Amino acid sequence: MESLINCTEEEQPSSVMTNSWSNQEACRSEKAKCAGGFVLVHAGAGYHSESKAKEYKHVCKRACQRAVDQLRAGALAVEAVTAALVELEDSPFTNAGMGSNLNLSGEIECDASIMDGKSLHFGAVGAISGIKNPVLVASCLLTEAQKGKLSAGRIPPCFLVGRGAHDWAVGHGIPPCPSEKMATKFSLSAYKRNKRKMELAEKMDTGQNQSKKRRQSSENAAHYGCGCWAENVCNMNSYSTAVSTSGCGEHLIRTMLARECSAAMQSEDAHQALLEAMQNKFISSPFLSSEDRVLGGVIVLRCCRCVEAQPSPNIQAAMVEFLWSHTTESMCVGYMSAQDSKAKTHISRLPPGTVPGQSLAIEGGVCRLMGIVD
Amino acid sequence: MESLINCTEEEQPSSVMTNSWSNQEACRSEKAKCAGGFVLVHAGAGYHSESKAKEYKHVCKRACQRAVDQLRAGALAVEAVTAALVELEDSPFTNAGMGSNLNLSGEIECDASIMDGKSLHFGAVGAISGIKNPVLVASCLLTEAQKGKLSAGRIPPCFLVGRGAHDWAVGHGIPPCPSEKMATKFSLSAYKRNKRKMELAEKMDTGQNQSKKRRQSSENAAHYGCGCWAENVCNMNSYSTAVSTSGCGEHLIRTMLARECSAAMQSEDAHQALLEAMQNKFISSPFLSSEDRVLGGVIVLRCCRCVEAQPSPNIQAAMVEFLWSHTTESMCVGYMSAQDSKAKTHISRLPPGTVPGQSLAIEGGVCRLMGIVD
Repeated sequence: MESLINCTEEEQPSSVMTNSWSNQEACRSEKAKCAGGFVLVHAGAGYHSESKAKEYKHVCKRACQRAVDQLRAGALAVEAVTAALVELEDSPFTNAGMGSNLNLSGEIECDASIMDGKSLHFGAVGAISGIKNPVLVASCLLTEAQKGKLSAGRIPPCFLVGRGAHDWAVGHGIPPCPSEKMATKFSLSAYKRNKRKMELAEKMDTGQNQSKKRRQSSENAAHYGCGCWAENVCNMNSYSTAVSTSGCGEHLIRTMLARECSAAMQSEDAHQALLEAMQNKFISSPFLSSEDRVLGGVIVLRCCRCVEAQPSPNIQAAMVEFLWSHTTESMCVGYMSAQDSKAKTHISRLPPGTVPGQSLAIEGGVCRLMGIVD
Repeated sequence: MESLINCTEEEQPSSVMTNSWSNQEACRSEKAKCAGGFVLVHAGAGYHSESKAKEYKHVCKRACQRAVDQLRAGALAVEAVTAALVELEDSPFTNAGMGSNLNLSGEIECDASIMDGKSLHFGAVGAISGIKNPVLVASCLLTEAQKGKLSAGRIPPCFLVGRGAHDWAVGHGIPPCPSEKMATKFSLSAYKRNKRKMELAEKMDTGQNQSKKRRQSSENAAHYGCGCWAENVCNMNSYSTAVSTSGCGEHLIRTMLARECSAAMQSEDAHQALLEAMQNKFISSPFLSSEDRVLGGVIVLRCCRCVEAQPSPNIQAAMVEFLWSHTTESMCVGYMSAQDSKAKTHISRLPPGTVPGQSLAIEGGVCRLMGIVD
């Protein structure tokens, strides 16, 4: 799918463009404190049934709209990202916030992370329970860290987990939410189905592992460089980039997929660079050489000022390239510029006959943003 | 300090050399299943008083000895690393395991991580309470992950935190330990001193922050690529490397210091490469541009086969380079080859008049390992 969107902006899309993302589902590229920008979100890399396709697309659409509403009101990119993520977390159809998968003990533990491409600050929570919107905690950690040192010269934390994360959140005014209210009929039935499947598999396992019942906690906390990444244009970077990943946590962590894809985006041909990164740094990664199937997906934004294509001295253009790629059966995405009347959504699927975890799909488009220089 | 150690081995130091480390204090380079090898450990980058210098050095010496005992008995590198780490964790003088710093609530939460340079597997725990030796849990996660998938095709976890990590550990035969037994008179008095200092600072803070009492959890869990890294020789790497870091968790995370130093070690001049990495990727990192002082330290091993210096066709030599660098006031290290009768230890200090967090010290040595080819 190729999509070209032209839009005008009231302000200059410039090097103050801020990229922020959260590791669950959103990745955006906008100017700080401007009415313009572009947002790209995902509702997971995994399997999206045709019967629920409408719901998946709808939540992506709503998330884009939330972010764009924020941008039009002059919000920072990080604020717009957070608003979109709250929408995605609140949906029972995404594996985040409300309706998250339950862990083996039947509890809901969530992760969230967010990064600011301008300040390069990062905030993340892992295995947090009893908070409806974990992204609010990640976002608050980021904001608090940007204020500088705590009393007695202490360095503010960028990553909190478990009970400590919950208590910090409540101490910072984020209301607690009973965990049982976060389970949905979908997540409960999936839990029961998966637990039965696991117990059946363990009964049938007559090998040496039978004597030892292996337990697995569901959580792999929101590792830096694995779930999301954002870096603005600087001395070392010709492009501003923002990346968000989804899929098998261990695979995303051990390949540092978000950071690798962001680094790849400094190559000239974004499509080719992402294809090669997904092939060489993910499917064929030496860090996952023992895995027969490598499961994940990524959404990527990159932006540069179009020096050669400025229509007039007081109008500047920026080029936003947006891409997604996945080795899972499907990935649901949505995107919108601040000048669009509504978001576009799409469920990308692996080509028929290809093997999930060994093949990939890659698609994307380009959006030219115009801005009037003051 | 330059130190040249020559030693002979009974087996060939070859590409099966395994590097493993743990993010708290150890970093080693040895052959898998061989009686030889070399171990490098640290007892933290921070401040080491002259009055306790003897104890810091002594625990490093014991940790090296434990690792070498394991290697001589034919253990794998990961097993030797784990044994050394248990020794370091059990010491009341290191901020790990027994005697760890308490968090704001007066509880002990520990991190540990370990990586195998051969399989590139990784195991880590964050914010774990009630386990005397967190490295045993990290090591067990690594070992379990190497066994392959769990029942029903589930992917084994590489990183667990909080209560889930504790329960997984106990379920895998690691005995629980009452948290109060892990506090020492040193850690308790440091807790009281720091809490008083913080409360005093908050009382004196008459600015806008006064109305909102900021709370901070002590934990930044053991992030991939930040605390430790190990990679053996492969198509892409001319050298096997192993790295362990210490210092301010946020600074280590946001610069991915361990992975950056490991990558730098593929340059020809190890000393120069580490110096540049510490300068450009740590002290002057764009990820920490808002920080006035960047606090951390690193120990680094790298090894290559010395093709040009083989003394005879059935004896092969390998060169191990070992380095440490820190921006903190001091760093305590120990090292030993399997052929040495005892470990060497050293407390490295910043040169007089330099500013911690803005300057660095760098030292190291070379060890030639000899091996007889079967």
